[in-house]
Amino acid sequence: MNTARIEKVIAGMHDLGISQLLVSSPASVFYLTGKWIQPGERMLAFLVKENGECCLYANRLFALSGNVEVPLVEFDDTEDCVAVLAADLTDGKIGIDKFWPSQFTIRLMEQRRAIVPVVGSSAVDLARMYKDEDEIRRMVESSRKNDETIEAVIAGLHPGMSEMDGAELYIREATARGATGMSFDPLICYGPNCAEPHHSSDRVTRLKAGDSVIIDVGLVWQDYCSDMTRTVFLGEPTDEQKRVYELVRKANEAGRAAVRPGVPVCEVDRAARQVIEDAGYGKYFIHRTGHGIGLECHEYPDVSRTGTAVCRPGMCFSVEPGIYLPGKFGVRIEDLVCVTEDGAQVLNAVSRDLRCIEG
Amino acid sequence: MNTARIEKVIAGMHDLGISQLLVSSPASVFYLTGKWIQPGERMLAFLVKENGECCLYANRLFALSGNVEVPLVEFDDTEDCVAVLAADLTDGKIGIDKFWPSQFTIRLMEQRRAIVPVVGSSAVDLARMYKDEDEIRRMVESSRKNDETIEAVIAGLHPGMSEMDGAELYIREATARGATGMSFDPLICYGPNCAEPHHSSDRVTRLKAGDSVIIDVGLVWQDYCSDMTRTVFLGEPTDEQKRVYELVRKANEAGRAAVRPGVPVCEVDRAARQVIEDAGYGKYFIHRTGHGIGLECHEYPDVSRTGTAVCRPGMCFSVEPGIYLPGKFGVRIEDLVCVTEDGAQVLNAVSRDLRCIEG
Repeated sequence: MNTARIEKVIAGMHDLGISQLLVSSPASVFYLTGKWIQPGERMLAFLVKENGECCLYANRLFALSGNVEVPLVEFDDTEDCVAVLAADLTDGKIGIDKFWPSQFTIRLMEQRRAIVPVVGSSAVDLARMYKDEDEIRRMVESSRKNDETIEAVIAGLHPGMSEMDGAELYIREATARGATGMSFDPLICYGPNCAEPHHSSDRVTRLKAGDSVIIDVGLVWQDYCSDMTRTVFLGEPTDEQKRVYELVRKANEAGRAAVRPGVPVCEVDRAARQVIEDAGYGKYFIHRTGHGIGLECHEYPDVSRTGTAVCRPGMCFSVEPGIYLPGKFGVRIEDLVCVTEDGAQVLNAVSRDLRCIEG
Repeated sequence: MNTARIEKVIAGMHDLGISQLLVSSPASVFYLTGKWIQPGERMLAFLVKENGECCLYANRLFALSGNVEVPLVEFDDTEDCVAVLAADLTDGKIGIDKFWPSQFTIRLMEQRRAIVPVVGSSAVDLARMYKDEDEIRRMVESSRKNDETIEAVIAGLHPGMSEMDGAELYIREATARGATGMSFDPLICYGPNCAEPHHSSDRVTRLKAGDSVIIDVGLVWQDYCSDMTRTVFLGEPTDEQKRVYELVRKANEAGRAAVRPGVPVCEVDRAARQVIEDAGYGKYFIHRTGHGIGLECHEYPDVSRTGTAVCRPGMCFSVEPGIYLPGKFGVRIEDLVCVTEDGAQVLNAVSRDLRCIEG
């Protein structure tokens, strides 16, 4: 059990006015217990009380007995797991994970009428937002491997390959470097598909001269996610492509340069967005500037116009401005940053200079 | 909107004593509206009232306006989506999907104190258990394609290939036959790995003489899942392997033979299990005999010792007995069946005879 992390969670519980919290998201349970458990349809809950007492409630199927350093209560499919848990709770407010399946919350209320569920997972989400030294080490190495892998993918691009060919190349190269998973399905897209931020790599679109190529990829290494984007061109880019690329490059730079302790994340969004708006392309930058990352690819903080977090040492998030011209092409450049005592460490070192692949 | 399906759901609501139901699982929403929507973190709910009124509540991001045949209420990220939904509910009991994220149920209760949430998704799950003619047609064709694909995989097995090589071969062959997805990650395992029913295909285990090979695979075609297992051997099997194979083959046959209208599914489990228990291998058959299947790979009914459903026309489920000898090998043979008016249609036609691949 990671006592320092539990203490951070308890501080968050105080802010929410709750004395007991049920943690259930697999990443948060891992964060606090050191064990990944994918419960599927079964009940999983890690109870944290304000006095520091903790207990993990898990199905015997997951064979945790003797394998976990926290107090453990096991049950099997023939038992009423909710009743087992309910017996250990105190009347009054209880924090519930925002994603806990409703069936468990409802059955808990049916068994303990004096319990008042409130959404409580932000206590863990806020703790996870500040990475400790060991977590930062893993984040750095995960991104270093991602840098190496994206270089291998760029080197492997050639006319006629499908987007999915590129995505599969990334998976092979990442796995060969020790990745144990992908932060998300690798996204490689060409030409007009680059202008659709929610496009998935397909098997029909093939790389051809004049295409922009967005490579948005991330791997998991020692449980921590990386995530970066580079945009390259096949053949000589048009003047418009060059102009847009340069704008996005400057927006990415401005966003990164704004990151230091005390700066609200909405100012990071503002810094990147301003560059693009000043050049008249504001309406083509259609998403937020970034998102927190760690055990999961999308965590706190929300680096957007309306993001309320303030940069503090240990926060890791993406800076990923983009310009998307429907039907034509798109450019996005994304790096991860980690807030330090006096500024920010950029976790990606792959060049952001304009790059053209031989046609 | 599929009125016949809505009527089945309303009948199930009456059985649960609820006059309003929030359906949220993507497969159930598709079943009733014809649209797949993956809401991610966002709220999605399809409200069914006992008088037949229905309404879909979805984020504007999903661009459903004009694309869906049911009444639609849209909202965006700046609105309180729960308040929008709460305004249309009636005080008293409301059925909630078992997997709806707790945050929505809790916020609903906070806004409407007189609402009493109960777990209500079984009203849809029970309706989905009985496939209609169109669904059965798709189930049949999905399994026919799965039959073709497994034959291609068996033909492609050769010494030295990794389990993951086999899994990737299945995906390629299934995709080439028009599959739009996999029912689950294809499971190909060799030798002692076959004795662990929760093993995942890995890249390090390579096929060698003497191995049993379990191939447990399924594809998605026109939204419907297939799922089958065959076990083959590399080289000449030992006497023990032959004996165990023959037992599992007979258990599979006995399970399928037991399926007809009016028979409780626990009797199907019993029929398959008896063959294995009578031969003294009962303790090595460590899972239930089968599971329902349709839009999702695991649906009602639960074909186990404790399953309470009774076979009725339109039910589709797996019959998949197995014997797992730890550290040695395992055998599983799985077919899908669909209950007919007077018996059962077996959806898989791939031979169950003992099959040995050249070493």
